[in-house]
Amino acid sequence: MRAVVIREPGGPEVLELREVAEPSPSSGEVRVRVRATAVNRADLLQRMGLYPAPPGDPQDVPGLELAGEIDAVGPGVTEWRVGDRVYGLVGGGAYAEKVVVHARAIAAMPARLSFEEAAAIPEATLTAYDAMVEQAGLGAGDNVLVNAAGSGVGTAAVQIARALGAFVVGTARSQDKLDRAAALGLDRGVLPADGRFADAVRAATGGRGVDVVLELVGGNYLEEDILACAERGRVVVVGLVGGATAGVALALLLKKRLRIFGTVLRSRPLEEKIAAAQLLGRRIGPLVERGAVKPVVDAVLPLDRAGEAHRLVASNATFGKIVLSV
Amino acid sequence: MRAVVIREPGGPEVLELREVAEPSPSSGEVRVRVRATAVNRADLLQRMGLYPAPPGDPQDVPGLELAGEIDAVGPGVTEWRVGDRVYGLVGGGAYAEKVVVHARAIAAMPARLSFEEAAAIPEATLTAYDAMVEQAGLGAGDNVLVNAAGSGVGTAAVQIARALGAFVVGTARSQDKLDRAAALGLDRGVLPADGRFADAVRAATGGRGVDVVLELVGGNYLEEDILACAERGRVVVVGLVGGATAGVALALLLKKRLRIFGTVLRSRPLEEKIAAAQLLGRRIGPLVERGAVKPVVDAVLPLDRAGEAHRLVASNATFGKIVLSV
Repeated sequence: MRAVVIREPGGPEVLELREVAEPSPSSGEVRVRVRATAVNRADLLQRMGLYPAPPGDPQDVPGLELAGEIDAVGPGVTEWRVGDRVYGLVGGGAYAEKVVVHARAIAAMPARLSFEEAAAIPEATLTAYDAMVEQAGLGAGDNVLVNAAGSGVGTAAVQIARALGAFVVGTARSQDKLDRAAALGLDRGVLPADGRFADAVRAATGGRGVDVVLELVGGNYLEEDILACAERGRVVVVGLVGGATAGVALALLLKKRLRIFGTVLRSRPLEEKIAAAQLLGRRIGPLVERGAVKPVVDAVLPLDRAGEAHRLVASNATFGKIVLSV
Repeated sequence: MRAVVIREPGGPEVLELREVAEPSPSSGEVRVRVRATAVNRADLLQRMGLYPAPPGDPQDVPGLELAGEIDAVGPGVTEWRVGDRVYGLVGGGAYAEKVVVHARAIAAMPARLSFEEAAAIPEATLTAYDAMVEQAGLGAGDNVLVNAAGSGVGTAAVQIARALGAFVVGTARSQDKLDRAAALGLDRGVLPADGRFADAVRAATGGRGVDVVLELVGGNYLEEDILACAERGRVVVVGLVGGATAGVALALLLKKRLRIFGTVLRSRPLEEKIAAAQLLGRRIGPLVERGAVKPVVDAVLPLDRAGEAHRLVASNATFGKIVLSV
């Protein structure tokens, strides 16, 4: 089969389309014929040699999400038949024609989506839903702040939060991104000035502040998050493009009884990956089916242009996801 | 009635024993004849003008916990009769002969304790139990780190964690405090060297790290906490004597999926104060009754020596609580 292989750690030019051995499903596993995958920042870090794949996952083929069809089932699998349309997360290896995954760690694809649309859903929506709802307990009536509202996870978060009845404030690097996020349901957009946004966010919530922050930037944003939070607010840190350290005002943390969570999906054990696939099927799928959560696809490129796709994501100029058709 | 009044913001000398008006219980409230109270760091901050009492609580009489007898009941109170022995938390005003509190926000005193012993229990044990168990989910088999294991909250935390089946590591400012904490159930004591303790704590847990940190020091300790944590560890920050800001390594926060909680008991709304009193009655009381959690009293002073009691707490040389008999 064909797959995009990381020849050696480096820039987008190290991504090479090659013939590699086809994987076989073991007991309890299925093989998926991948029809589309999508690019995540983790792929860029992995390509640079900064974020190795978890043990047991393909080490040199990137790709954390996919949409496709069941191609073969291993012994003992009763959930799926060859030809079923599925989508979900994998620990790596999705920039390839075929991938093996545990039968319970994949979900049925919403019928209304194309493969290219479906491939834009799993990582973005699961990261957002898991962080905001499962971990931070977001519910109707809450105020939520999405930092990087125009990113893949950000656009998913805005839609999910709106669908659940929350009031959604977001920041982005440009007014254009905020305008496009508004069309997805963002209630108020804030353009940070000199990295500051807390006062504007508090004003946007009538002074009360936000109950949940989905932090996709990191770095100094965390200081502003703490200022922007309402009492008992929860800040979930998912992304670090803005920096890997932060100063935390502990006095405010205590006084407001805030909580800061660090989270990552990729390195989770099998039981949590299965739980994520169940979320994708039972919680996110229905929101997609009724149109409350739409895939946000900036561009679709063929698999042999994966390097170009990485350059696009690194530019920070994209809105939503870059998808690779396989 | 007699009460210790903060004459003006300042040192221990501004605490004055005076005659003040006796409070009356309103509907749903009880009046307690205080027999003993205890000193908390919050009292010292309040005395210095740095930590005003919450609105509705006495502003110029410190004191957050007490043990005593029901002295009068307000209309509608069916839970208590005059003479019942009770203990619990208040928002302020406990350095006095009488205090009014909501009837559901106070608990029955364990029979085996004297008033002086009982007054050493509420703030220390509730802070520790709420932080470690209710918030951070500490359970049997977990490793827990208590920073400032010789403090009032620390000595309570060590005993509670041991009683629940956790493995308890603690730090303190002196070997003497660690030795005394060992007698309360501390499994391993670590003396920080140049503010560093993470490596020693990890070694004490066989390399795995701790699942829960009760952080009573704050400041730079937080950096070490993050290093000392096992995957999915929770750090609950309760005290800030070591500093009010901290640098947080976000990359490690994400990779280990850590959580940092800020918490404070005093400013909570009535429903949470009632919940705390129920914890004191239903969870902590039984541990005290069977001797698994013992009050740790460094010294008992009469109420008119409150200033001296404050000096003792500020010295950091005490082990456990300083109690005031009333």
